[in-house]
Amino acid sequence: MISSIGDVRPQIMDFEEPLALKSGEILSKYQLIFETYGILNDDKTNAVLVCHALNASHHVAGTYNGDEKTLGWWDNLIGPGKPLDTNLFFIIGVNNLGGCHGSTGPSAINPATKKPWGSSFPMVTVEDWVEAQARLATKLGIDTFAAVMGGSLGGMQALQWTIDQPSRIKNAVVVAAAPKLSAQNIAFNEVARQAITLDNEFFGGDFYQHKAIPRSGLKIARMIGHITYLSDDTMDVKFGRALREEALKFNFDTDFQVESYLRYQGDKFADTFDANTYLRITKALDYFDPAAKYSGNLANSLSNAKANYLVISFTSDWRFSPSRSEEIVGALVANKLNVSYAEIDSPYGHDAFLMDEPIYHSLISAYFERIWVEALNV
Amino acid sequence: MISSIGDVRPQIMDFEEPLALKSGEILSKYQLIFETYGILNDDKTNAVLVCHALNASHHVAGTYNGDEKTLGWWDNLIGPGKPLDTNLFFIIGVNNLGGCHGSTGPSAINPATKKPWGSSFPMVTVEDWVEAQARLATKLGIDTFAAVMGGSLGGMQALQWTIDQPSRIKNAVVVAAAPKLSAQNIAFNEVARQAITLDNEFFGGDFYQHKAIPRSGLKIARMIGHITYLSDDTMDVKFGRALREEALKFNFDTDFQVESYLRYQGDKFADTFDANTYLRITKALDYFDPAAKYSGNLANSLSNAKANYLVISFTSDWRFSPSRSEEIVGALVANKLNVSYAEIDSPYGHDAFLMDEPIYHSLISAYFERIWVEALNV
Repeated sequence: MISSIGDVRPQIMDFEEPLALKSGEILSKYQLIFETYGILNDDKTNAVLVCHALNASHHVAGTYNGDEKTLGWWDNLIGPGKPLDTNLFFIIGVNNLGGCHGSTGPSAINPATKKPWGSSFPMVTVEDWVEAQARLATKLGIDTFAAVMGGSLGGMQALQWTIDQPSRIKNAVVVAAAPKLSAQNIAFNEVARQAITLDNEFFGGDFYQHKAIPRSGLKIARMIGHITYLSDDTMDVKFGRALREEALKFNFDTDFQVESYLRYQGDKFADTFDANTYLRITKALDYFDPAAKYSGNLANSLSNAKANYLVISFTSDWRFSPSRSEEIVGALVANKLNVSYAEIDSPYGHDAFLMDEPIYHSLISAYFERIWVEALNV
Repeated sequence: MISSIGDVRPQIMDFEEPLALKSGEILSKYQLIFETYGILNDDKTNAVLVCHALNASHHVAGTYNGDEKTLGWWDNLIGPGKPLDTNLFFIIGVNNLGGCHGSTGPSAINPATKKPWGSSFPMVTVEDWVEAQARLATKLGIDTFAAVMGGSLGGMQALQWTIDQPSRIKNAVVVAAAPKLSAQNIAFNEVARQAITLDNEFFGGDFYQHKAIPRSGLKIARMIGHITYLSDDTMDVKFGRALREEALKFNFDTDFQVESYLRYQGDKFADTFDANTYLRITKALDYFDPAAKYSGNLANSLSNAKANYLVISFTSDWRFSPSRSEEIVGALVANKLNVSYAEIDSPYGHDAFLMDEPIYHSLISAYFERIWVEALNV
């Protein structure tokens, strides 16, 4: 079996209560697609929510129809006997609102117009996602999560959970995240957005009606993103200056392997991801800044938080470097919250949070063992 | 007077001898546009060649028609009493072959077809530029340069001069350069190229005939480039998360100042730079690798070099970090060449080489004073 979990099947939850978004717009009804792994215990104390990052989805673990190409994005971490053990925990993966994998988003049909939402789909934020996730938990009968967990943008959601839903989360596992984006982070997102919106096939976001896809823009966006996920060193080890053929071609085909790798990644992404979703998720990243309401004081934004925290960063991550995680840790410590922090030595850059790094996985494993013991003692 | 040099005027030199390019193609005739500052002495021992980087030109110093917007890109360094003193030296700035500021390039008319070269313009390399520059020197009656100098890609040309023309260069000033691009460097260039070539207005490079300009692609390319020229810290100091207006807009207009700055820079670039030139210059960067012929041994590639070197790097430059300059220094030292190296503390990233950093300018100043004294003693 490719995945220790085996085949899984997503579920849909419909929500009829209007959701007031941070932008001021109201989503009158919506649906969320999600998957679950493991079994919810009778006390409903063993639920763990896994939040996804920019390019991922609710499909966190397992496969579809035994096809290894469909392996969930955090399958190496989740399963029976794995660091996040499905023998102990009931794990939920959910596609965020605005997504393009089954939850209501720009590519979905707007029931009011019977056409794809397209450009009219509202902007969504990390706060909106947390609210929608909390409503999903309520519908599933889960009052309190044993943990909310995520890497990168997923880690930001875990952090926001402890601010917005302090009584409904016991632990937050915040991996490779930051308390807000830097100017450079925003700049890379903005280039990606410009690549998409300036693509002739974008049609102001209403490309569905034109049977068009802004493939070039999506490809460029993904290529830029991909560079920021990898470390300079990893790229040098993986590709270096290796050529695709024996000699330089002196044309604009691909001379170097790194070029063809990036083009391939870009093309693959353009085939599967929705441009309007990409635009909105990068904006959600840019907008994330819990300290903003508190004159930039992150500690103050966390004054009502009660969760325990595991914060993890990776040495070679230049997208969200260890110092960004340390800002989070500092704010938690200032609130005398229970926080464990580890800076993991890894050459894999931001992508390290998806990798099988033994120390990293051991740490997650030990932390969830403690959560399990504490859950039993409640 | 805005510039200490005042108004300057470019000159054109025509070359009728065919130039065999590294790609195997032959350019039967071509012209180079150049400017000079200062006076060539009778012995012709005081000539300095300044090589330009990706986005610059032969217009290194001075103004056109007293307009401060036309100030040369290294005007802060060059002039009477400045670090590169026009009272002592005769300085030449030249637009490289393949450029778009007056030297023969893709946007020029191909005499054979009477149409713009466009996609048919050959690929040019650092080696080709050095050969063309050497021929220009010959035509100007300059046998030996007191120094060849440049930052970034300009520094690579200075280094290549010492390899290809060892008897015609006394000193090389190599600022913020690298002995070859890393996979990450190539990756950023490739994204920029893809943005241009995938633009609907590119027409395979023959957009001139379609009265089109791949503006979007050029804009994206410039935005990406610009991010890599600045340090993360500089961007945070200069822009941080400052908003353009009081509140978030929740749309795809520009929320943050860094977004509007980058869009402005991108638009300005798209108005002035030729897409085919940009493609070729980034390829020249990717191809630069003097050690390649020597199984990657940079020291061996420099075994015939005789020049003295000043190598300078900047602490916050993550495009070509100090360690890349140290690779050059190591190879020079291995050849027992005379080399001075300084890592300048600067927050300005790669762009620091264009800035008025006092220690940096003092160093250049002292180095050229020594060159002047040595030139007198020859």
